[in-house]
Amino acid sequence: MKDRKFFGNKSSDEIIKTIQEFHGWAAPGVIIGAIMVDYALENLPAEAEKDAIVETTHCLPDSIQLFTPCTFGNGWMKVADWDRFALTFYDKKTLNGFRVWLDPEKLKHFTVVNNWYMRLVPKKSIPLEVLNEAILSAGRDMLSGKKVTVTGLYGKKEKNNISICSGCGEPYSASTGALCQQCSGHGYFKYSSAE
Amino acid sequence: MKDRKFFGNKSSDEIIKTIQEFHGWAAPGVIIGAIMVDYALENLPAEAEKDAIVETTHCLPDSIQLFTPCTFGNGWMKVADWDRFALTFYDKKTLNGFRVWLDPEKLKHFTVVNNWYMRLVPKKSIPLEVLNEAILSAGRDMLSGKKVTVTGLYGKKEKNNISICSGCGEPYSASTGALCQQCSGHGYFKYSSAE
Repeated sequence: MKDRKFFGNKSSDEIIKTIQEFHGWAAPGVIIGAIMVDYALENLPAEAEKDAIVETTHCLPDSIQLFTPCTFGNGWMKVADWDRFALTFYDKKTLNGFRVWLDPEKLKHFTVVNNWYMRLVPKKSIPLEVLNEAILSAGRDMLSGKKVTVTGLYGKKEKNNISICSGCGEPYSASTGALCQQCSGHGYFKYSSAE
Repeated sequence: MKDRKFFGNKSSDEIIKTIQEFHGWAAPGVIIGAIMVDYALENLPAEAEKDAIVETTHCLPDSIQLFTPCTFGNGWMKVADWDRFALTFYDKKTLNGFRVWLDPEKLKHFTVVNNWYMRLVPKKSIPLEVLNEAILSAGRDMLSGKKVTVTGLYGKKEKNNISICSGCGEPYSASTGALCQQCSGHGYFKYSSAE
């Protein structure tokens, strides 16, 4: 597996370097994600324009953003906050796709990875290099994949009409009412009194 | 402005190339975002470890992910889906931060950008190069920024305990009940009958 090529021509060392640069460190979850993305894409027509849906906010979104044209900001990747280590790529035109997930029955055969993912041992007791080596060695054998038809979370998220908030004077989505979220009391900051 | 350096040493051409490679095209919103990120970071101590909060899902998250260590998947960037073109960076330790937003009063002085952002003319009537040139030329003069204290959306989003769904047998967050979201009827796909 160590010598396996990802996405046609990338070595596992290149994959890990790319992950380190973007994600900040060689996170095991992002490496599993790279294997998942590679597996899903191989099961869809190369020529199809593909969008992504990911079922967790943790790690996996970065694998999609790094190794496909789908990003959070361009809207081609949608995130369902379900804490499931699974993703789907699908053809935008036909909605036919391929879903890949970390399969607990298969994962049991890979003790190091299983102990880490299912939290059977303290995280810090597994050295990162050992874990990542085990992940690369398991490869697709810990995953399952199946053809799906996408029935939700697809399509372009349209921008709402922009209004000016009568509280702060800033543009915001008119659909949320006469005031923006911050001025309605649902904000996340207060201005420092010094300014 | 065309010759301005971003993030200490990057030219606007480099910024645009980086955006094209990740986001797929030189989206005006991501370019404005780069100017916003640059402005915010300059107003915080260089040595502080900084997290980000962004107030829209459109475009702006990619500027943060491209030009800072904060990504969606590593959890250092949080997204509030408010359709506000604004972002905050803050010191993780002190929660003191700096918020930057597109200021409608200032934007009025930049007709091309204002017409595009406020949708006063059809999007397609403005050539992309003309719009992006106008954005680079306006630079920070269309933005406002202010010191803030962050009061929400900060901190690490902990992973929930993992259970195995009694419906599909997949791992999922135990906190959502006895079944995963898909098996509870809130899913986004169906398996193809052929498989």
